[in-house]
Amino acid sequence: MRNALYAQSGGVTAVINATACGVIETARRWPERIGTVYAGMNGIVGVLREDLVDTSAEDPEQVARLRDTPGGAFGSCRYKLPASEPMNADLMRLFEVLQAHDIGYFFYNGGGDSQDTAHKILMASEAIGYPLTCIGIPKTVDNDLAGTDCCPGFGSVARYVAISVQEASLDVASMCDTSTKVFVLEVMGRHAGWIAAASGLAGKGEGDPPHVILFPEVAFDQERFLERVRSTVERVGYCVIVASEGAKNPDGSFLSASSGKDAFGHAKLGGVAAYIASLVKNQLGFKYHFAISDYLQRSARHIASKTDLDHAYAVGAAAVDAAAAGTNGVMITIDRKRDVPYQWKTGTHPLDQVANLEVPLPRDYITPDGFGITLAARTYLAPLIEGDAPPRYEAGLPVFARLRMRRVGRQLPEYAPLRP
Amino acid sequence: MRNALYAQSGGVTAVINATACGVIETARRWPERIGTVYAGMNGIVGVLREDLVDTSAEDPEQVARLRDTPGGAFGSCRYKLPASEPMNADLMRLFEVLQAHDIGYFFYNGGGDSQDTAHKILMASEAIGYPLTCIGIPKTVDNDLAGTDCCPGFGSVARYVAISVQEASLDVASMCDTSTKVFVLEVMGRHAGWIAAASGLAGKGEGDPPHVILFPEVAFDQERFLERVRSTVERVGYCVIVASEGAKNPDGSFLSASSGKDAFGHAKLGGVAAYIASLVKNQLGFKYHFAISDYLQRSARHIASKTDLDHAYAVGAAAVDAAAAGTNGVMITIDRKRDVPYQWKTGTHPLDQVANLEVPLPRDYITPDGFGITLAARTYLAPLIEGDAPPRYEAGLPVFARLRMRRVGRQLPEYAPLRP
Repeated sequence: MRNALYAQSGGVTAVINATACGVIETARRWPERIGTVYAGMNGIVGVLREDLVDTSAEDPEQVARLRDTPGGAFGSCRYKLPASEPMNADLMRLFEVLQAHDIGYFFYNGGGDSQDTAHKILMASEAIGYPLTCIGIPKTVDNDLAGTDCCPGFGSVARYVAISVQEASLDVASMCDTSTKVFVLEVMGRHAGWIAAASGLAGKGEGDPPHVILFPEVAFDQERFLERVRSTVERVGYCVIVASEGAKNPDGSFLSASSGKDAFGHAKLGGVAAYIASLVKNQLGFKYHFAISDYLQRSARHIASKTDLDHAYAVGAAAVDAAAAGTNGVMITIDRKRDVPYQWKTGTHPLDQVANLEVPLPRDYITPDGFGITLAARTYLAPLIEGDAPPRYEAGLPVFARLRMRRVGRQLPEYAPLRP
Repeated sequence: MRNALYAQSGGVTAVINATACGVIETARRWPERIGTVYAGMNGIVGVLREDLVDTSAEDPEQVARLRDTPGGAFGSCRYKLPASEPMNADLMRLFEVLQAHDIGYFFYNGGGDSQDTAHKILMASEAIGYPLTCIGIPKTVDNDLAGTDCCPGFGSVARYVAISVQEASLDVASMCDTSTKVFVLEVMGRHAGWIAAASGLAGKGEGDPPHVILFPEVAFDQERFLERVRSTVERVGYCVIVASEGAKNPDGSFLSASSGKDAFGHAKLGGVAAYIASLVKNQLGFKYHFAISDYLQRSARHIASKTDLDHAYAVGAAAVDAAAAGTNGVMITIDRKRDVPYQWKTGTHPLDQVANLEVPLPRDYITPDGFGITLAARTYLAPLIEGDAPPRYEAGLPVFARLRMRRVGRQLPEYAPLRP
């Protein structure tokens, strides 16, 4: 019997804590194999600092409530571990920490970079002969991990974006006769248009919003775009645009890089919505509004999809079961069995075939005109936003987990990670 | 027995259609007094154009579903009717339309400008001797109408903002160790800080977000603001800021007007969040994210407060009951009887004491430092966000009302409103 270490990494989601819950609850079912589950504070950075939480000190009711709690309960990090060859101080320190706390199972919960980290640690453990079961657990709103049908976290953002577009479009439709005619919603997706695509689920028929989706995968054609907006306003009375933050000019530069200067004369960061809105105002004269969901979209636990929540819990549980059964060096996956009715199960995929790959939105998910989604996209996306799983509310506000966060006693000297 | 006319005006809300539902359903209970309820398309503009919908053609099930449907089902407008003295073409036309369809009850559902319109029409009806019962129905997310304890539409935005701050703050808290340290949420409220204040409900104890609220009522003090952000990051690890779009510089100019130029060299519209974020980045060096909820906040029916939804229905129902009982020239109000447990009833307030007044956030709702809300504010705000009232979902998406929108046959020549 050895202890386990779980940590969260990269941008967090509305349901990553459901994965933590799956790990902690499932480990308790393997008392002969798995001892204490420690959580690294702020991902691998906390492991390097020997900043560990003893999850066995938590009240089971609060652990269960992690399902209802967005964000990363144990903190996350953006930290890329140095490559394992040659061996480096970070990796040396990592194994000192693992050894000091008799950790034999390492579960890393994140996106592509995090799977790469898990893979590096696996390689290093073999190189130095430290027996370690190393399992990656998928999480990313970007939905771009290889080997899995979808990524926990994505389904809830997808639902948030689709519902937000439906709701805001009814607002714009009400106002368009004498006021706002164009509404732009900026969504996440720096490299792939999965989230932008999900907004397309808001519309069912001809003329339904969103009328224009700007994908990172389709070079922005200003003339065709403006013509589409103009004709949509003429036909429908208003136009709803969903712009991926990763939308690009034909030369490959981000549209957001064209969005002007801030009050300090610096190039504005972000701001594809502001750019698109200004363009529409200046070229077509329409009154506009724009919204930027930013963190709200990926933390909106209140509107999380039940499917996504179930996926998130299941990948945590499956990681522990796989590890206890002797599997090593894999990432847990969601495998789709059927579209309608939706059927799925968890599976595994070798870590070395996941790390540093990004799965783009397939071209056949985008309509030939580049502004919408196809039936293939709808078939893929629809099950992921299904089901309602509201948190418990008290006095109108959600009730989140309150963890004790009892720190594990330090046994090693202090250490500063190489890339702070 | 005479017919009734209902119309929606100004910025719409997540629950204004619940008011429409209250009007239509309640009118059916007064068959001896009220004939058909017509709805003006796009507010008073549609009345002037004789563009009317016969709501008696609607399926009662779809009318009931208006409770679940954000935006303005009959369209809204931003249109200020010319003053009634001297009599003008708009008002002459209005009474021609009312007479042509034997309309004896006029219900106008909106904010301060709309109550002013209702009052002008009442004055004009008396001046020309056209018997008309004229009732204003309150609606505004700005919560700034006189004579009522609160305004339907506000409670739901308040809940949206409070929950969004809670959720996004958990996200920022997860990321702050190695990434984002400051998060800014821009909320509506050009003239009053009611919505910004509601975000304060997200925090219960010392150190809880939001850490800084920027109100239109408090002149922005850059130095004190930056010091507060810096010390908050030092103490808590991150800082969450809620900025009202109406936040102002000491000279009275909008902060958003300082936010730089757009890609076309024009002063950027909106953008207080971008300005504040740039300021923090440039002066303190912290990595930031910002979100702009814009229409999402006022159309978010999925997270509407039950209290607000009940208010919205009740003011519609009470308007019809008042009119049928012979009351005239009033706006329906929400009267608070008790804070805890919350008790309320509808009341009335003379239209001439509502029109063109704006109720600011009381100074004693803002903490002495100008960055937070007091217990008095919490006591006032808390009941308004209480209760969950989710819409029905199918395949993960809300099911909205589908109205037939049968137009009433035109009996008059075409007319173009004076201010198109």
